[in-house]
Amino acid sequence: MVDLSLHRPVSASEVGNWDDTADVVVIGFGAAGACAAIEAATEGADVALYERGSGSGGASALSGGEIYIGGGGGTDAQRDAGFTDATEDFETYLKMAGGPCVNEAKCEIYAREALAHYDWLKAQGVPYRGNYAPGKIIEPADDSTLIWSGSEAAAPFRDAAKPAPRGHVIRFTGWGGGRLLVDQLEQSARAKGARITTDSTARSLIVDGDRVVGAVFMEEGQPKFVRARRGVVLATGGFVMNEDMRRRYCPQTFLISDPIGERDDGTGIMLGMSAGGDAVHMDQFFTTCPWIIPAEQAHGVFVNTAGQRFINEDCYHGRVSRTCIDQLGGKVYLLLDSAHFSQPADFARTDIAATGETWDEVEAELGMAKCTLAATMEFYNEHAANGTDPRFDKQEPILVPLDKGPYVALELNFETSYFSFFTLGGLHTSVDGEVLDRGGSSVPGLFAAGRCTHGLPAWGHGYSSGLSLADCTFFGRQAGRKASHG
Amino acid sequence: MVDLSLHRPVSASEVGNWDDTADVVVIGFGAAGACAAIEAATEGADVALYERGSGSGGASALSGGEIYIGGGGGTDAQRDAGFTDATEDFETYLKMAGGPCVNEAKCEIYAREALAHYDWLKAQGVPYRGNYAPGKIIEPADDSTLIWSGSEAAAPFRDAAKPAPRGHVIRFTGWGGGRLLVDQLEQSARAKGARITTDSTARSLIVDGDRVVGAVFMEEGQPKFVRARRGVVLATGGFVMNEDMRRRYCPQTFLISDPIGERDDGTGIMLGMSAGGDAVHMDQFFTTCPWIIPAEQAHGVFVNTAGQRFINEDCYHGRVSRTCIDQLGGKVYLLLDSAHFSQPADFARTDIAATGETWDEVEAELGMAKCTLAATMEFYNEHAANGTDPRFDKQEPILVPLDKGPYVALELNFETSYFSFFTLGGLHTSVDGEVLDRGGSSVPGLFAAGRCTHGLPAWGHGYSSGLSLADCTFFGRQAGRKASHG
Repeated sequence: MVDLSLHRPVSASEVGNWDDTADVVVIGFGAAGACAAIEAATEGADVALYERGSGSGGASALSGGEIYIGGGGGTDAQRDAGFTDATEDFETYLKMAGGPCVNEAKCEIYAREALAHYDWLKAQGVPYRGNYAPGKIIEPADDSTLIWSGSEAAAPFRDAAKPAPRGHVIRFTGWGGGRLLVDQLEQSARAKGARITTDSTARSLIVDGDRVVGAVFMEEGQPKFVRARRGVVLATGGFVMNEDMRRRYCPQTFLISDPIGERDDGTGIMLGMSAGGDAVHMDQFFTTCPWIIPAEQAHGVFVNTAGQRFINEDCYHGRVSRTCIDQLGGKVYLLLDSAHFSQPADFARTDIAATGETWDEVEAELGMAKCTLAATMEFYNEHAANGTDPRFDKQEPILVPLDKGPYVALELNFETSYFSFFTLGGLHTSVDGEVLDRGGSSVPGLFAAGRCTHGLPAWGHGYSSGLSLADCTFFGRQAGRKASHG
Repeated sequence: MVDLSLHRPVSASEVGNWDDTADVVVIGFGAAGACAAIEAATEGADVALYERGSGSGGASALSGGEIYIGGGGGTDAQRDAGFTDATEDFETYLKMAGGPCVNEAKCEIYAREALAHYDWLKAQGVPYRGNYAPGKIIEPADDSTLIWSGSEAAAPFRDAAKPAPRGHVIRFTGWGGGRLLVDQLEQSARAKGARITTDSTARSLIVDGDRVVGAVFMEEGQPKFVRARRGVVLATGGFVMNEDMRRRYCPQTFLISDPIGERDDGTGIMLGMSAGGDAVHMDQFFTTCPWIIPAEQAHGVFVNTAGQRFINEDCYHGRVSRTCIDQLGGKVYLLLDSAHFSQPADFARTDIAATGETWDEVEAELGMAKCTLAATMEFYNEHAANGTDPRFDKQEPILVPLDKGPYVALELNFETSYFSFFTLGGLHTSVDGEVLDRGGSSVPGLFAAGRCTHGLPAWGHGYSSGLSLADCTFFGRQAGRKASHG
């Protein structure tokens, strides 16, 4: 019996009988795996795609189906709405959003090719209405296309790159268009001849010397040995559902309680590392709390337990949320006046911690010293009335005085309130989707894309909606194409 | 010719001729390697120690020779000074200082055995005067022993564990006692029969199946194949001098400019990973700026570019410094009044950014809006006069009003001021110093200690002086002992 492990590859010499052979073996049927399969098949490869679940989906199907696209003078939707989005501004934003030691090459190639990628998505049958929905929203309530989905118009990003909305949402009414996105990609992959196997769980890679030549899957308790003539593409998602991996690589996520993913247990990262692949920026994670629901709460002000603001709240909700959990004290407060408060969504698990006719009363009810929170709000309101935020450069129209009592402080407790999160670190890959080893060389025969890699969504403090699907669809294609050429 | 690489082990079958054989091969001659060699030799093993430099040292020899010790009712020095240090308080502090997902087992064993470890160090010839030097100091100017070297007496640590000073400094007048510490350990290692080879650089591990059975060293351009009958101990330090590794695993260090180390280029981590070892918490790093030199500056107040305080400045200088570089804006200011300012050390590269007869003038000169910095200082002074800090719970006697004009703001710029740093992530090891793989099993024949592992000094925000030498001396011993038993 061959010893199977995520942590050690199986030698091809131990394989008695190959149960299946393909040119390209893709593992995982979210958006990244689907795009890899489509491109590999388009290049003429015989493609076998294996998925652990009973159908396509992955975390992509849980998303809003929003893809971050811009540059090149703008997409149709951007231009129609009056935004000419230069490639240089797009690239600058991607690099800032990626944080320290961002993968510049990935930002550069995507900035150049995003428009063509948008056309490619449409050619796969992904529908877009093409209109613009202004305002600060998480996902459109209707089937609109273009939304602001990052921190483009907020400091400090606005000072470095001309802002433009770049979130392109699939035509789907309401939230959850990611399912439709994956359905369209599945249809395209099947039409191009990719062979799909579901309920099949990757267990080990198979190597011949340094080269990856296949993978072992478990089906109904039995191992299945699958040979890949040209390459294996890992597209199995992140590791947010693997507590043991988070403990070792991403400990700060234990401050919060709501992982989001779909079987994102780090399988692909472990398999990639077993063959010598490098995993990078493993500490990074996205988090958000739904503080801009209801929408008028976007005008709120956050303070920490010392009664201080800590961010320009007009930046992306995930950047605000990520900065929230950097604060000492285990919780923060969202301050609202009666003009901007309405009952928060139940799932947010945010409680009213204090109310008052004045900010002084709210401050006292929270047990804060006099002239902490109240002084913060006095300063804030005085300047907001003049359209300025001297501390953090928050901009109108989000910037408004909160001066219509009574007032409320909502408590966002890191442990008990809803802070969803997923991981951003993963395998180090080239722009062509080759898995790189710790010396920077490609691991022959091994490719990867999506959240099992470290890509465009690189830094929790800079995340913008649509970056992850941009990354997994575009670099999924890159990986599939490269793998098809061996 | 055998292909040598840090990233792939050499197979024993490729080794034509063994140039040297020992029971235990130790790589690296800082404090960790020396302690491993002493213990392995004490257990009767034939020990060969290889060092890249021309003599012992490593980063240990650049340090102050301070070791974090406590518990068990207190060391002689602690008890003489009136501190009875319970093991439970010591353990609680170690765990808090280690941050999220700390290695609890390492904290527990060290808390239990630190007193015996202190006796062991003395038995190796490490001298201690035994007296207590009160106050907030980085290293004693004289040859004193016991100092406060962490955040024990500061919030929030003081609320969880009864404070005690635990920094035990080698008897050495002035800074830099780490050199003497390594000298003493070297003497002991040689006395116990360890064979020392210098100017010999580790290049690859040698494996027989899953087991590590030796290492390849380069000497004057020639490979030397060294067999280890029982085990190889990696003790080569962290990766602060390896920019490529920092880019991939510890990007936030690129905010600051002054790595401290001595050939800490990650060799041991790469070698360990090449044999299947896991590396964990690789994003963590220690940093400090010498803001409490001159000593009266310890009474200063830090504000960020929004004019806000962000930490109780009475905690460990490294915790303050680490929190500094979390602040937006690329710099922070250290505020001092005329009673507490004197010219900072040149090497700190801190400039006077503003002066004024009042805090309002300082605020204006920094270009901050009215009622930001000045309001912060008004609030701070009002409460400090009563001995309280409602925002961050800073304690007397560090807490004093800064109300004797004229006033000064020193700029600590992340890029240009002196922020020294070193890495804290590394190989995952058991409490016995076995290198663990990504599945949590030990890699047969491979052991590690010191900064190429992840140990007691685990979290930049919780670091305390003496934790790293505590870790590398104690777990160096553990690794040497375990390796000697194969």
